Amino acid sequence: MRDELSERKRWERFFAPRSMAVVGASQDPNRIGGRPIAYSLRAGFAGPIYPVNPKYDQIQGLACWPSLAAVPQPVDLVVVAVAQSQVEQVLEDGAGKVGGYVVFSAGYKETGPAGQQAEERLARLAAEQGAVLLGPNCLGFIAADVGAYPTFSSGFEDVRPPRGGGVAIVTQSGAFGAYLLRLATERGIGASNWVSTGNEAGVTVADLIIYFAEHPGTRIILAYLEGVQDGKRFVGALECVDRAGKLLIVVKVGRTDRGAQAARSHTGSLVGSDAAFDAALRGHRAIRADSVREMLELAEAAALGGVPRGDRLGIVTVSGGAGILMADKALDQGLVLPEMPSAVTEPILARVPFAAPYNPVDITAQTINEPDLLATTLAAMVEHVDLDALTVFLSHVIAAPSLADTLFEAFRQVRARSDIPLWLVGLATEALRRRYRELGVPVIDDPAAAVALVAKLASVSAAPYPATGATFEDPGHPPAPEEWAVKAWLAGLGLPVPPGRRVTRPEDAPKAADAVGYPVAVKLQGAGLWHKTEHGAVRLGLDGPEAVVEAATALWELASRLNLTDPSLLVEKMAPPGEELLVSVRRDPVFGPLLIFGLGGIWTEVLRDVRTELASAPPERLAAGLRALRGAGVLLGARGGPAYDLERLAAFLHRVGQVGGGLLARDPQATELELNPVRVGVEGVQILDAVLYRG
Amino acid sequence: MRDELSERKRWERFFAPRSMAVVGASQDPNRIGGRPIAYSLRAGFAGPIYPVNPKYDQIQGLACWPSLAAVPQPVDLVVVAVAQSQVEQVLEDGAGKVGGYVVFSAGYKETGPAGQQAEERLARLAAEQGAVLLGPNCLGFIAADVGAYPTFSSGFEDVRPPRGGGVAIVTQSGAFGAYLLRLATERGIGASNWVSTGNEAGVTVADLIIYFAEHPGTRIILAYLEGVQDGKRFVGALECVDRAGKLLIVVKVGRTDRGAQAARSHTGSLVGSDAAFDAALRGHRAIRADSVREMLELAEAAALGGVPRGDRLGIVTVSGGAGILMADKALDQGLVLPEMPSAVTEPILARVPFAAPYNPVDITAQTINEPDLLATTLAAMVEHVDLDALTVFLSHVIAAPSLADTLFEAFRQVRARSDIPLWLVGLATEALRRRYRELGVPVIDDPAAAVALVAKLASVSAAPYPATGATFEDPGHPPAPEEWAVKAWLAGLGLPVPPGRRVTRPEDAPKAADAVGYPVAVKLQGAGLWHKTEHGAVRLGLDGPEAVVEAATALWELASRLNLTDPSLLVEKMAPPGEELLVSVRRDPVFGPLLIFGLGGIWTEVLRDVRTELASAPPERLAAGLRALRGAGVLLGARGGPAYDLERLAAFLHRVGQVGGGLLARDPQATELELNPVRVGVEGVQILDAVLYRG
Repeated sequence: MRDELSERKRWERFFAPRSMAVVGASQDPNRIGGRPIAYSLRAGFAGPIYPVNPKYDQIQGLACWPSLAAVPQPVDLVVVAVAQSQVEQVLEDGAGKVGGYVVFSAGYKETGPAGQQAEERLARLAAEQGAVLLGPNCLGFIAADVGAYPTFSSGFEDVRPPRGGGVAIVTQSGAFGAYLLRLATERGIGASNWVSTGNEAGVTVADLIIYFAEHPGTRIILAYLEGVQDGKRFVGALECVDRAGKLLIVVKVGRTDRGAQAARSHTGSLVGSDAAFDAALRGHRAIRADSVREMLELAEAAALGGVPRGDRLGIVTVSGGAGILMADKALDQGLVLPEMPSAVTEPILARVPFAAPYNPVDITAQTINEPDLLATTLAAMVEHVDLDALTVFLSHVIAAPSLADTLFEAFRQVRARSDIPLWLVGLATEALRRRYRELGVPVIDDPAAAVALVAKLASVSAAPYPATGATFEDPGHPPAPEEWAVKAWLAGLGLPVPPGRRVTRPEDAPKAADAVGYPVAVKLQGAGLWHKTEHGAVRLGLDGPEAVVEAATALWELASRLNLTDPSLLVEKMAPPGEELLVSVRRDPVFGPLLIFGLGGIWTEVLRDVRTELASAPPERLAAGLRALRGAGVLLGARGGPAYDLERLAAFLHRVGQVGGGLLARDPQATELELNPVRVGVEGVQILDAVLYRG
Repeated sequence: MRDELSERKRWERFFAPRSMAVVGASQDPNRIGGRPIAYSLRAGFAGPIYPVNPKYDQIQGLACWPSLAAVPQPVDLVVVAVAQSQVEQVLEDGAGKVGGYVVFSAGYKETGPAGQQAEERLARLAAEQGAVLLGPNCLGFIAADVGAYPTFSSGFEDVRPPRGGGVAIVTQSGAFGAYLLRLATERGIGASNWVSTGNEAGVTVADLIIYFAEHPGTRIILAYLEGVQDGKRFVGALECVDRAGKLLIVVKVGRTDRGAQAARSHTGSLVGSDAAFDAALRGHRAIRADSVREMLELAEAAALGGVPRGDRLGIVTVSGGAGILMADKALDQGLVLPEMPSAVTEPILARVPFAAPYNPVDITAQTINEPDLLATTLAAMVEHVDLDALTVFLSHVIAAPSLADTLFEAFRQVRARSDIPLWLVGLATEALRRRYRELGVPVIDDPAAAVALVAKLASVSAAPYPATGATFEDPGHPPAPEEWAVKAWLAGLGLPVPPGRRVTRPEDAPKAADAVGYPVAVKLQGAGLWHKTEHGAVRLGLDGPEAVVEAATALWELASRLNLTDPSLLVEKMAPPGEELLVSVRRDPVFGPLLIFGLGGIWTEVLRDVRTELASAPPERLAAGLRALRGAGVLLGARGGPAYDLERLAAFLHRVGQVGGGLLARDPQATELELNPVRVGVEGVQILDAVLYRG
């Protein structure tokens, strides 16, 4: 506990510094070593700044020091803006008196093995002195609240982000990160912190998500990612965001899967490289935005209006057309439009008999003549209807000089009596937008886009399944990767497989069949025998001893044709009819074991209709995952078949995730446990085939 | 021909008037009868304006007339802003000297049967005098090129759309239309014309699309629709847009299908109310936008940059991250990223060895130090690569004071030597945006959104199948709606059905089976017998006379149990194996016969994976439709089955469209011809069941 606290303090000292040194300082405010000083001075940084450069006595009006070693005081943060070859000396000079280093210098792991080694030395040096290391090869950061601008981005010459804004931006890319911050500032989103992580030799994006989740001044974190290195740490960061009740909005590039992975298993080609990331995000207070624009709009909407607590939307409009447009989008996105009680509709109809004040509540263009209609309507809706959000379309009427004050007053009154998120849709002047912004009401010009934002924010509240740690039981290990051995191991763990016997001589097959009960399947077993069906190594629906003898003899001949060493036969009772699932636990290099499931046949083969979850996902999230399959209807009786119990099926999937996750954890060679197919019947589930792949 | 010309002149006289009268004129420039005068005077309308109001001598400084009859000159356009009860008198007064009427007055069909009748009288009055009628219950229009503002929208008090802008906006809704025009003007899109059609007693949206398609000053038409009344006219309008080489961008509300239609046929519940509209749009120079914002962005992108001639996109970026983001989106949207030849890559690598100048062509942040890199790169790309569009991400660097001119010059040079559509992605000042706009280069701030716009515009060029007229052959009529009769009729038209015989006595069935060849199916026939399979009225795979006798006897018993009048048996040769399709020709109340097709089984039952086309669609479009099915892979051999010849299948679908369309045209009672299933085999297609539904 003390360690965590001191770690936190170390980071606070660095990311909200009270003193800075700039090594490689420049007199020119537009050079790399000049910008951090010029920006911070202009932003009113209160603490001392120590320029370090052996060639000068003064830089930008400040006393200059010949080396970091010569600086007489401890320094919270050191900007390192020197050639790569001189960086290590700077860290040596700072040992014992520096809180952390921002290393702008490039020439590290992005250049090859020698650079990689230099980067590792750097990380070691920083770690040894307990200093924070940001970079190398990064653009630095800004902390507007304290006026600290240890960055050489050209983006802050004429623009300065606001203090106390409550939004933090975290990016790997420096150039794109600075662009994002510029766009955010342009929109009036209070992004007061931005950090670019560069090569991430020390501080990573996940670290910063944790830092800002716990940072009292931050409510919303925007992250722009090109990749995640440590999945476990990233999931830990998501859990921090949840605990703090904050909101993370992520843009991650690389959504398109340019080449399906080659893999022996069916599942390999089904799972895009990005599915694991989506699986990790799911269920947390995190939204994945499709674009930078969407990210910023979500940020603005959430920062001002808040996050809706549910999916019940009220729509008010002065135009029937816009009302339909918004209702269409709302239903399309899964929002609910509650009906309006007479307490809402009657006062409107009394004044505008031709109005249709349902939901959308169309108060018509009559609002131009009777602007107080808006206040009456909003007040009645907030008082009498259980709503999670309200969108109000007022067209360009918002800004009409004769109406603007009355309409604004209607919003002010709602804000005074309710904290329901409100969005105003229309065309306002910049001054008017600012007024609404101060009231906590974002103004958006596109009706459909406004509703889509509400829906995406509401989805955060609809993610009620707490994340679980990724510790699995130790399930032991199957004695061999073959079907019979994996099934015996699964059965031993209480997972359902068909009653079956393995025989090592074909003549024992009929006796085994008698024991398990007819009809039976006979399947050839042997090391290295994949894709049994394609080899004709499976005989199904055998209904008597003669058929079993014939099948066993034929399969034994096949075994010698295939040169199988140590062949055997698995005799199993045929499973009752039902639907078939593919279920797999698969190792992801970043996020660890994934649980992947979908319906068999064309659903997976043609439609790639699978759900990917972390193998540690709780049953509730797996049940939601089953329901989210496009083919979910098949399991719910859509084709005239029975409706299966999805909760029971989710419990089975959860157990598979635990067992498979545990197996992958204990066996580093294991890459995947594939159960395909799993038969889902009215009586329950049976695993019809099971394979363990080892790398 | 002369008629068309004179019609055109009549419309030009009205929509670009040289004289106006305002009946119900008001002294107050903010009242309904005052605004058209005030707006037009302020916009510098050159012709005479005649205020009409018996109470005044002068209005807004103009001589006022007691009645329209008293106005001494012919008038191109009369604004009617009087009570509903006085409107007819105005039209009578104008007979013989008025080009057309804009009727603001409400109280017509929106109020009920009496209003409907009044509206019909109005339409008749206008038609009798050969006058154009816009409205009633509309907000009027603006024609900025001539300074005419016959509208009472409050949206033009402080804003005036530009002259000569090349964009026309057509809306049914007045309030939302004015809002759209305001947004367009705000964005600098040159929307110089806007018309609101109101109740559409005379002029419809389709009429206006035709008018602006032929209007020399207009290049892009934006239409906002709540519904289409006359589908044939609308399709005719799309053909006009194609012929004129212009671009139509449509937002139509009502995409969500709130209640599936109840229908006897399988197809009924599959086709959303909106599918017909999409089918009508497909293949034309028309784009359906999902939102008003997308509509305006597309309009801006097309108005400035033009429409790409194909799908080959070049991406230039100064940030690797933005490059990936744009490439992801491009591939996701089906664009092609051509590889860059050494003529492009080598000059870059010579100067920036660590650049990755492929496609995306990442010229890195080094551009800040060497801004001429951009000009060199763009020039080489335009010269050496066959590209249909170019997007360039320059971040906030575009606007850096020291770089802005050099970067702009790079674009100017490309513009001078190539007409390739160019989009600049970054953050510019308004002044700089304007400069780029004048060069024909839109500036967009979001990288992914920019690429999505390119893709959507490029889709217009990828729609190469000319629309066909909706005239069908007359295929005659089946003698009865039962399977045997419909099949005989289809066979007579050359459509493939299985070899079969109908017998009216069960004892004749074996002889019929001998004649068609075993194995056979025997199917009970009878008026009113729907859903044969569910009744057990179909016996399949009968492989000898005994089985046929048994089946025929059982079916005959079923016939008496079901009390069928006039029962019979259809004996058919079993079709070869293959995939099954559902094919249907169905009457749409607006767009006429639709051709609907999809794969059978879960594809249609669970996934609703059907394609809807106009029944007159050419085979090429139907082949594209087959390929666009989500289950298309099944027909192309995805599940290990054979790959079928989609062109041949499309030819079959086309013939079904012709025959079904012709049948629906000759038989007003017929609602749908449903072929379900159609068996697609290696040898060809067979229609296994066929039903004609009559309303």
